[in-house]
Amino acid sequence: MPANFGSDNSSGVHPLIIEALAKASMGSAPAYGADALTKKVESRLASLFECEVTALLVSTGTAANCIGLATLTSSFSGIYAHAEAHIANDESTAPELYTGGARLFIVGGDDAKPDLEELAQKIDVSGARGVHSVQPAVISISNLTELGARLSPDEIAAYSELAKNRGMKLFMDGARFANAVAGGSESPADLTWRSGVDALSFGATKNGAMAAEALVFFNPDEAILAEFHRKRGGHLWSKHRYLAAQFDAYLEGDLWLELATASNTSMARLRDGISLSNNASILAGGDGNELFIAMEEDVAEGLLQRGHMFYAWPSLPKAYRLVTSFTTTTAEIDDFIEDLNS
Amino acid sequence: MPANFGSDNSSGVHPLIIEALAKASMGSAPAYGADALTKKVESRLASLFECEVTALLVSTGTAANCIGLATLTSSFSGIYAHAEAHIANDESTAPELYTGGARLFIVGGDDAKPDLEELAQKIDVSGARGVHSVQPAVISISNLTELGARLSPDEIAAYSELAKNRGMKLFMDGARFANAVAGGSESPADLTWRSGVDALSFGATKNGAMAAEALVFFNPDEAILAEFHRKRGGHLWSKHRYLAAQFDAYLEGDLWLELATASNTSMARLRDGISLSNNASILAGGDGNELFIAMEEDVAEGLLQRGHMFYAWPSLPKAYRLVTSFTTTTAEIDDFIEDLNS
Amino acid sequence: MPANFGSDNSSGVHPLIIEALAKASMGSAPAYGADALTKKVESRLASLFECEVTALLVSTGTAANCIGLATLTSSFSGIYAHAEAHIANDESTAPELYTGGARLFIVGGDDAKPDLEELAQKIDVSGARGVHSVQPAVISISNLTELGARLSPDEIAAYSELAKNRGMKLFMDGARFANAVAGGSESPADLTWRSGVDALSFGATKNGAMAAEALVFFNPDEAILAEFHRKRGGHLWSKHRYLAAQFDAYLEGDLWLELATASNTSMARLRDGISLSNNASILAGGDGNELFIAMEEDVAEGLLQRGHMFYAWPSLPKAYRLVTSFTTTTAEIDDFIEDLNS
Amino acid sequence: MPANFGSDNSSGVHPLIIEALAKASMGSAPAYGADALTKKVESRLASLFECEVTALLVSTGTAANCIGLATLTSSFSGIYAHAEAHIANDESTAPELYTGGARLFIVGGDDAKPDLEELAQKIDVSGARGVHSVQPAVISISNLTELGARLSPDEIAAYSELAKNRGMKLFMDGARFANAVAGGSESPADLTWRSGVDALSFGATKNGAMAAEALVFFNPDEAILAEFHRKRGGHLWSKHRYLAAQFDAYLEGDLWLELATASNTSMARLRDGISLSNNASILAGGDGNELFIAMEEDVAEGLLQRGHMFYAWPSLPKAYRLVTSFTTTTAEIDDFIEDLNS
Repeated sequence: MPANFGSDNSSGVHPLIIEALAKASMGSAPAYGADALTKKVESRLASLFECEVTALLVSTGTAANCIGLATLTSSFSGIYAHAEAHIANDESTAPELYTGGARLFIVGGDDAKPDLEELAQKIDVSGARGVHSVQPAVISISNLTELGARLSPDEIAAYSELAKNRGMKLFMDGARFANAVAGGSESPADLTWRSGVDALSFGATKNGAMAAEALVFFNPDEAILAEFHRKRGGHLWSKHRYLAAQFDAYLEGDLWLELATASNTSMARLRDGISLSNNASILAGGDGNELFIAMEEDVAEGLLQRGHMFYAWPSLPKAYRLVTSFTTTTAEIDDFIEDLNS
Repeated sequence: MPANFGSDNSSGVHPLIIEALAKASMGSAPAYGADALTKKVESRLASLFECEVTALLVSTGTAANCIGLATLTSSFSGIYAHAEAHIANDESTAPELYTGGARLFIVGGDDAKPDLEELAQKIDVSGARGVHSVQPAVISISNLTELGARLSPDEIAAYSELAKNRGMKLFMDGARFANAVAGGSESPADLTWRSGVDALSFGATKNGAMAAEALVFFNPDEAILAEFHRKRGGHLWSKHRYLAAQFDAYLEGDLWLELATASNTSMARLRDGISLSNNASILAGGDGNELFIAMEEDVAEGLLQRGHMFYAWPSLPKAYRLVTSFTTTTAEIDDFIEDLNS
Repeated sequence: MPANFGSDNSSGVHPLIIEALAKASMGSAPAYGADALTKKVESRLASLFECEVTALLVSTGTAANCIGLATLTSSFSGIYAHAEAHIANDESTAPELYTGGARLFIVGGDDAKPDLEELAQKIDVSGARGVHSVQPAVISISNLTELGARLSPDEIAAYSELAKNRGMKLFMDGARFANAVAGGSESPADLTWRSGVDALSFGATKNGAMAAEALVFFNPDEAILAEFHRKRGGHLWSKHRYLAAQFDAYLEGDLWLELATASNTSMARLRDGISLSNNASILAGGDGNELFIAMEEDVAEGLLQRGHMFYAWPSLPKAYRLVTSFTTTTAEIDDFIEDLNS
Repeated sequence: MPANFGSDNSSGVHPLIIEALAKASMGSAPAYGADALTKKVESRLASLFECEVTALLVSTGTAANCIGLATLTSSFSGIYAHAEAHIANDESTAPELYTGGARLFIVGGDDAKPDLEELAQKIDVSGARGVHSVQPAVISISNLTELGARLSPDEIAAYSELAKNRGMKLFMDGARFANAVAGGSESPADLTWRSGVDALSFGATKNGAMAAEALVFFNPDEAILAEFHRKRGGHLWSKHRYLAAQFDAYLEGDLWLELATASNTSMARLRDGISLSNNASILAGGDGNELFIAMEEDVAEGLLQRGHMFYAWPSLPKAYRLVTSFTTTTAEIDDFIEDLNS
């Protein structure tokens, strides 16, 4: 059975989430988030993160990221992120649109973890000249990083310390936050506010939902403008309960963690298989559900011809990205490895 | 049985649309609109409108409207709409965000139909002084209008002529376009491009979908920037097939028309009942699924206390808005009328 | 001698201001406003207004107005002004650019004074629906108004009260503030902060300067973002002392008031002459240096053919605007009146 | 006599330019650029550049740069520049404001010349993924560069070729364009459109004017939106003749070239002196009127204490910037060298 390691965006919606949508489809409910299901989800998120939160549901990761960044910045601000970051690389100029023209500053760093020293240097140089400079406002990190690595609480705390020392905020793009949590033993709180994260975009879409992300602020005082940014971006759903229904089912019985664990377990098997292969070598990732490997072009070509699906990753040499999802089967993995080695 | 005439946004999702989502949830598909279902919907829309179209699916009406307006304007442009228009009244400053700061000019007119003379005068005065003035770019109309009236092809053509004579475009907010089509004998083409409409936001959300609107351009040349605006607004779904699935089911077997006809039929019964009542008088609407009536405050209060749901409409005196949907039952209508008259 | 009543923008620069530029042109000085002349002007403005102020110098009225508005608003805000206001009518979409997309709401009112009742009604309706609505933020008035009327402290205080009751700010476009001061007996403080004005664009360009306007905030706490908006708009001059030099000379020995008094005196003579004429009637203005009169087209044509210069004012019927400046001579006025009556 | 090498922004205005302002101050003239002096300057610029041009006068370099960039881009665009570029380093987020949120991409390169290979690579990677990516639109170079180097026609043509091959435009920040022209034997045309430059901000402020820059488009078809951007930014002067007067005097008798030659000659003497010194070493620049040198901190401190003025340049190690202007005297240079060596 040919494997689909193309993207977790190409996998379907989990049956329990479809079921929740179907259930929510009956009867009427107040519009624009005034419904009971939305309240329930907000309360679930507070429990999950063990603190008071302000949470806004939206249908895309770009919306969650950019509404979050807009809420924490002004139009004179600087935002600092890794070159591979989704906000820097995959969201057109959405960050500029939502922030009113804040500037992205790009740093390097292994495994798509922003290098701390370069980060400090870029912040200090770019923001050094008062009104002539941008005003450094936000460090944005991703967990999982865009190269499939997991940030530990200590790593996150180091970013937070750097930010706090300069009066900046720490934002986390958590499109694959579930995979980061599933990849270790720390709680969602440990990986966010306890390590100094101010706001998180908590993804569900790539992990079994249809189109649902929660933008979570750990300091409600900082969140007061977020609703205006959401509305103004056209991201406040009238039938809001269908965003809430997705999240309700996603959080119910820790489905989110179960699905992420399944993806990660598939990845572990895939990674182990590849590590033993002579035809590929691991470049990055593997902490969650993403792996970046090097293969010769003819090897990759052969796999694609057998129907396996995955994409080249142009920013690394001879690199390809493999992504597992909750729908990945052992058969897919084993067939891929077998074809790789043949 | 108490009636819910609060909003068509509070009604649920039609079972056939939920079923389509469930069906689309299985298996994998290319992300970001490269899937087969999206192509199918584009082709369905071309058939429905009897012409080549460029269609973009998004999850909210604000997104469809503002991406459409942004595509047809520049940041120096003027957009002319009725004071009751959704873009003027219900979408915060989303039009300004997406257009980069174009200006809305407001005109009056009965039944929320922009008054042609005032429109011409405002356009000519506001745009008269070259670089000092805004550049008149778009007339935006709604069909149904925001006061529940239906624009005929002749009325639309009059707006179009006015626009064309000044090098402007005609945009139609069709959040309730289905109700407008169901309210007469003309085709979707007659009510749009054949009457000079350049782009339409064709709503499904208020008429049985979950969150789906099609932004339809009737001149594909004018649509080339629309995809950039959608992406940049964070409105390009990764699992795009779930927008497509809603629209596919919505168009299949003319479900959209069937549901709108049901809403309109309910409204006709409600309207007839109210027209015979001594306790309320009709102010506007009734062509589709919206009616605006005047009642004394104690009458309204009595109905609300009996569990009927509807909202005051502050821009008209002593006014209340009643909206039917595809879920409205005869029992709701009849009980409402009975309670009104008691 | 044919009269030039076209615009106070077409008059030259007063010799004392040219002299100040020449004097400042020698030697070197710190750039970007760190020079001594700039500090001196800030101190002069504090004295003039009898309070602590934050003042920013820029070279155009549009910059002063829009940086001021941007400082007092957010991108979700509503700004309320008269239809004739310069920000509504003569500055393209500069207000939208600087505010990041706040919305202008237009009201009517005699003499280009915003009608208080309509103002209150528009604010209350437009801002009534929370996140769906704009957030009413600023009332913007002009003194002189755009139809040449002078607002009294009581009139200003009424706008202020209306604004303060709704948590809004009061902004004054003072492109012809000097003429307003010269037109009565109240002090600059009486006509601004003592009547509740939060920020003023204090014009010099139309009254003898080359290109200089002071954006004055009467509450320095509200001004902290203004410098960022000025810089970001490209309005922070490197050789800032040449803005300061203009203002220094403008304020020295009350030159500003002397020039405005001269303009107003010319206008009084012109107005008196016209009021006695059978060939023209006064429509509006005359409190300062602007007058709006009605003439038959052939009368106007005759005057233009004799070399007199003035413009039609399309928003009033058969209307023409006459503007005097500090360079207007008695001969110009008398010849104009004579030609009008001949 | 202590030297002032702090900035060419701190030098005064040349007497001939003051004289031109004084002369223009008399009489009246049409506002907003409809005056004869403005036409004359446009014609002078066409002669100077030996081609038809569209030229807009503004009062700051930031305005010229950002209006230029806005005219050549859309809000989805990418702009590529050196890390030291003024637009990247000294203009807050003005580029984002004027472009509506285009993104700046930063490259390295010796002498603040963008490295061609890195440029090509960044453009190709950042723009590779269709709607998800920014759309590469402009390469922006500075001549002189921000480290005082002069770009030759061949170097400029290489940037142009790279741009043209990708459908991009080439913009030149010419704040010190006069010094670049004076530093070689090529004509203004050779250094701009003949080498593929699409638009130039041609600076006068740093070279003897008060506040005047010309934004020059070599393809008038590409310039049609520039006037709207200027107006919208509040940069269209009402008394426009005072911008024109500065430029008229600046171009008359090649004053601009004479002043730049004077600055460059001073720099040559200063550079020669420093190259013989044991207490400083040259890091970059010297082609025009800027030099970057390394000194020990105590050496620099000693010079500052003797009253010489110059600034540290944090992006290079132990670096200081020295700038000459048309007002620099031999005595200043010789005293500086003497104090450096003592």
